[in-house]
Amino acid sequence: MIIIGEKLNGAIPVVQKAIQEKDENFIRERAIAQAEAGATYIDVCAGTAPEIELETLKWMMDIVQEAVETPLCIDSPDPEILKAVFSHCNKPGLLNSVSGEGNKQEILFPLFKDADPAWECVIMTCDDSGIPNTVEKKVELTQQMVEKGKEYGLTPDRIHIDPCVMALSTDNTSFLHFRDEIAAIRAIYPDIHITSGLSNISFGLPARALMNQNFMTLSMYVGMDSAVMDPLNRDMMGAIYATEALMGKDRLCRKYSKAFRAGKIGPIKK
Amino acid sequence: MIIIGEKLNGAIPVVQKAIQEKDENFIRERAIAQAEAGATYIDVCAGTAPEIELETLKWMMDIVQEAVETPLCIDSPDPEILKAVFSHCNKPGLLNSVSGEGNKQEILFPLFKDADPAWECVIMTCDDSGIPNTVEKKVELTQQMVEKGKEYGLTPDRIHIDPCVMALSTDNTSFLHFRDEIAAIRAIYPDIHITSGLSNISFGLPARALMNQNFMTLSMYVGMDSAVMDPLNRDMMGAIYATEALMGKDRLCRKYSKAFRAGKIGPIKK
Repeated sequence: MIIIGEKLNGAIPVVQKAIQEKDENFIRERAIAQAEAGATYIDVCAGTAPEIELETLKWMMDIVQEAVETPLCIDSPDPEILKAVFSHCNKPGLLNSVSGEGNKQEILFPLFKDADPAWECVIMTCDDSGIPNTVEKKVELTQQMVEKGKEYGLTPDRIHIDPCVMALSTDNTSFLHFRDEIAAIRAIYPDIHITSGLSNISFGLPARALMNQNFMTLSMYVGMDSAVMDPLNRDMMGAIYATEALMGKDRLCRKYSKAFRAGKIGPIKK
Repeated sequence: MIIIGEKLNGAIPVVQKAIQEKDENFIRERAIAQAEAGATYIDVCAGTAPEIELETLKWMMDIVQEAVETPLCIDSPDPEILKAVFSHCNKPGLLNSVSGEGNKQEILFPLFKDADPAWECVIMTCDDSGIPNTVEKKVELTQQMVEKGKEYGLTPDRIHIDPCVMALSTDNTSFLHFRDEIAAIRAIYPDIHITSGLSNISFGLPARALMNQNFMTLSMYVGMDSAVMDPLNRDMMGAIYATEALMGKDRLCRKYSKAFRAGKIGPIKK
């Protein structure tokens, strides 16, 4: 499972506060904690007003890159910001994200042309009309963008498609559609990654953590292999280790048992 | 989901103690608690020495039948005991269980011949050689027994097949085989129920509750529709409600939200 650690996002009030107060220690500790918990990438998103986003994001990146070896997931709604910080990464990371909106593809795909081939990219299946409401349209949009990326040397095995899962409370077929999208996209691109945030599914529902966790388990089973998540959430990490073992991917359940002994999953020892 | 409440089994030390002390209140309260939590059947198993099993089981049955409307799941390894208590049920219930062992089929299937057609039956896919080690053999054994049951009017829609899931720690394909068995059995008998205990899967592992819960979620997804479980385990009940909603079986997530409001699932309110 590819874990994109989500805990350094300016949309989170405590992170916003740390940004405002220039609290380097807070940023550093969240980076280290996520890296130690098993993050594959550390997402950095400033979430500030546009006029200070670039300097804020670079400030965050510097702290994280100084603190951990884990590569960055650079995250902004503004493609110009992503373009500006791309070369500020000290090693290849994950670009979050391209979509069919505006001129994102035109601005961002060319970055991959001469970049280290270890760079990866999140592509969200939405465009200026919003999120397509059928599996077919999402797959069509995915295919258009993946083929466009290929022109710049971005191979499907380095792409994480985010099919933009809808809230289950308003669309009961939300997970079932996600499953169908995964199957349809993998039928075309067998090596592509499928990613998702884990909390959209539970929007508008009570006991959201419970729903998110069961969504993780079922989504892994139907082929999601990447997630934007909190690697310090032990219930969620437990779901990941248990599901990988159930899927026959953990010989003698050694990883599961080791994660338990390391205190990463299961009930907290008294 | 058909929930077979497992908390009145003499193999559980506190239940054994209540049986020894003839503690009617304990038995009654466990029956009521399970019924209120949503049990479809209340399993009663004496788990005592053979010479007192019949009287003990009848004593338990009397208390439970007096206390709740929920039908019984009569449970014994001894088919003669099951035969003896069958008519002691005041309404049709679930017989637990027939298997290919010894003369269980010969003793138990005839009970269904003239019984109320609401009676249901658990059939375990094992025989005197133990548990078959391939999907094919389990399906073959299932088919032999289901066909035998039909001769006595026991229709497949009243049968709960228990494919005897192995421990994941010793067989990493355990869940995957379970999935394949469910698919193969349902291909022959579309209306049959598939049941399982939830704890065999985690035998030999740490953090068993975590593994059991993820096993529940994935098993429901692949077609298990009945389980021998503790309906008072709120994490497990949460997994059931969340999974049913994710599978598109809970319009507007109303059942999920209602279960939360009733305090059955989700974090405990402070």
